[in-house]
Amino acid sequence: MSDAARSAGGVSLTLADVREAHARIRPYIHRTPVMTSATLDELAGGQLYFKCENFQKIGAFKARGAHNAVFALTPQEAAHGVATHSSGNHGAAVALAARSRGIPAYVVMPSNVAAVKKEAVARYGAQVTFCEPSLAARERTVEQLLAATHAYFVHPYNDLRVMAGQGTSVLELLEEVPDLDVIVCPVGGGGQIAGVAVAAKGVKPGIRVIGAEPAAADDARRSLQSGTRVMANDPQTIADGLRASLGDLSFALIREHVDDIVTVSEAAIVSAMRRVWEVMKIVIEPSSAVPVAALLEGALPAAGRRIGVILSGGNVDTDRLPWLK
Amino acid sequence: MSDAARSAGGVSLTLADVREAHARIRPYIHRTPVMTSATLDELAGGQLYFKCENFQKIGAFKARGAHNAVFALTPQEAAHGVATHSSGNHGAAVALAARSRGIPAYVVMPSNVAAVKKEAVARYGAQVTFCEPSLAARERTVEQLLAATHAYFVHPYNDLRVMAGQGTSVLELLEEVPDLDVIVCPVGGGGQIAGVAVAAKGVKPGIRVIGAEPAAADDARRSLQSGTRVMANDPQTIADGLRASLGDLSFALIREHVDDIVTVSEAAIVSAMRRVWEVMKIVIEPSSAVPVAALLEGALPAAGRRIGVILSGGNVDTDRLPWLK
Repeated sequence: MSDAARSAGGVSLTLADVREAHARIRPYIHRTPVMTSATLDELAGGQLYFKCENFQKIGAFKARGAHNAVFALTPQEAAHGVATHSSGNHGAAVALAARSRGIPAYVVMPSNVAAVKKEAVARYGAQVTFCEPSLAARERTVEQLLAATHAYFVHPYNDLRVMAGQGTSVLELLEEVPDLDVIVCPVGGGGQIAGVAVAAKGVKPGIRVIGAEPAAADDARRSLQSGTRVMANDPQTIADGLRASLGDLSFALIREHVDDIVTVSEAAIVSAMRRVWEVMKIVIEPSSAVPVAALLEGALPAAGRRIGVILSGGNVDTDRLPWLK
Repeated sequence: MSDAARSAGGVSLTLADVREAHARIRPYIHRTPVMTSATLDELAGGQLYFKCENFQKIGAFKARGAHNAVFALTPQEAAHGVATHSSGNHGAAVALAARSRGIPAYVVMPSNVAAVKKEAVARYGAQVTFCEPSLAARERTVEQLLAATHAYFVHPYNDLRVMAGQGTSVLELLEEVPDLDVIVCPVGGGGQIAGVAVAAKGVKPGIRVIGAEPAAADDARRSLQSGTRVMANDPQTIADGLRASLGDLSFALIREHVDDIVTVSEAAIVSAMRRVWEVMKIVIEPSSAVPVAALLEGALPAAGRRIGVILSGGNVDTDRLPWLK
């Protein structure tokens, strides 16, 4: 066991795991572009390199983790398909990965999920089961589903293979822009930033990895500060991808590898999202705007630094733009 | 004089001019990416390669032509700066090009222009003069301005150097995707498609070049069919970049080099624009959606063909999305 694994409370995730994940998923995912913007550099006062996971398959980084988890299964594990619960991008990612591998996918979604998200999952051929929109109902429905199908459960973030997959974006980013000083990444359940931090520190030990969170959903920041995992309590934020609580595995890795977590207001998120659309001409979802907001509002000082920014996804209901409310 | 120049009524624009323009402007413009989308390929039934001029400097292809025109001036011609009239992207493009060359820029804009467009021009340091929103007032104001400043006039499209610059996008596109069967491009004043057609047929004589126009502003199609330049008469289309009439120079080159012009409905434009935002996660303006609409609605059959699509710009007022009207 490596030093990193020991000190992260026995949770082992290493650069080698992320590299292995990258080799495994490469045929199924996009190598997304890294974009720059002179205007945003000027506004932030530093040099920003945007890793555009909004252009990833299914429109979000979740395709990486899901493909790694699904393709790492043994034939026995995969024999009855895979199952997950999701109200968003992870469901579509598991559905697509299962289709790529040629096995069934079962996705539990809350009955009040937006039609567009249900359609995304169904488009990839997954079987959707609806449940009441509560944690208890979701867990019960998943248990029943697993008992009935014997499918393999792929957690949205608290899963080492999922985290290894999410970290692969950073291998590509650092290949293209090796001399970054900082990487900033949104934090929801913590799966992405855990993988990102392991990969970034593995490739470049001196780099800083910073999480960005809505102030209205700052459970990860409070967890990191207190050293004890604080649970999110139905947080009200427009960044719908960042409402989950940390998992025990993601929290252990974040404590070990993440340098700091900064927070931003809801207004700053909306403003940063709109700014990216208008200046960069790309569509990002509110969760992706959180690290941008941290840079534009000064929560994360950019002056004189070269900063990698993970734009995690671009799935937006274009009928409801937050600045037109 | 080449054969092409002779047969285009003495209007000479050749591949060599476009290559020369490319060498001239390359330090000042972006080499924009070529994007693909499995979902749009499926919807259109062919293979589509999107040249993303929405990511170009000032958010539109106009940066190419303006930089070529401004940097091709002799020191004497450039001594008193450059002037133009524009209610949109060309004004910003001339302003930026003049700033790059270090000479003054004067832009005449209608008094009812959107604040965002005025700001874009002013941001690059141009001096803005407002006029009544009529053709007569515009021409009078430009004449007065030229008399007072002795600036060099750069027409938005009916200018061979501007057209040569606009054609440079196709050199990049065909370098990256050499085996295209067709290139489709929006048609407004005809400057872009003239340059595009000269470049495309120069590099690859067998390629087809198709224009796409709003049915509500189909003056170019009627001009091409009748062989006589038909003027647009205040056309009502959401594609605000495509409301101009052809110039005599652009029309001559279009007759010589463009194979056909197809038209699409306003509803198809809005629907295609939204589809590109949602599927490709990129922001395009209505004018850019016109060729996409032609492919998605069947006006331009795509089956079995490899088609280059010029996405000409991404400057949109995000307060007024056409599908939210």
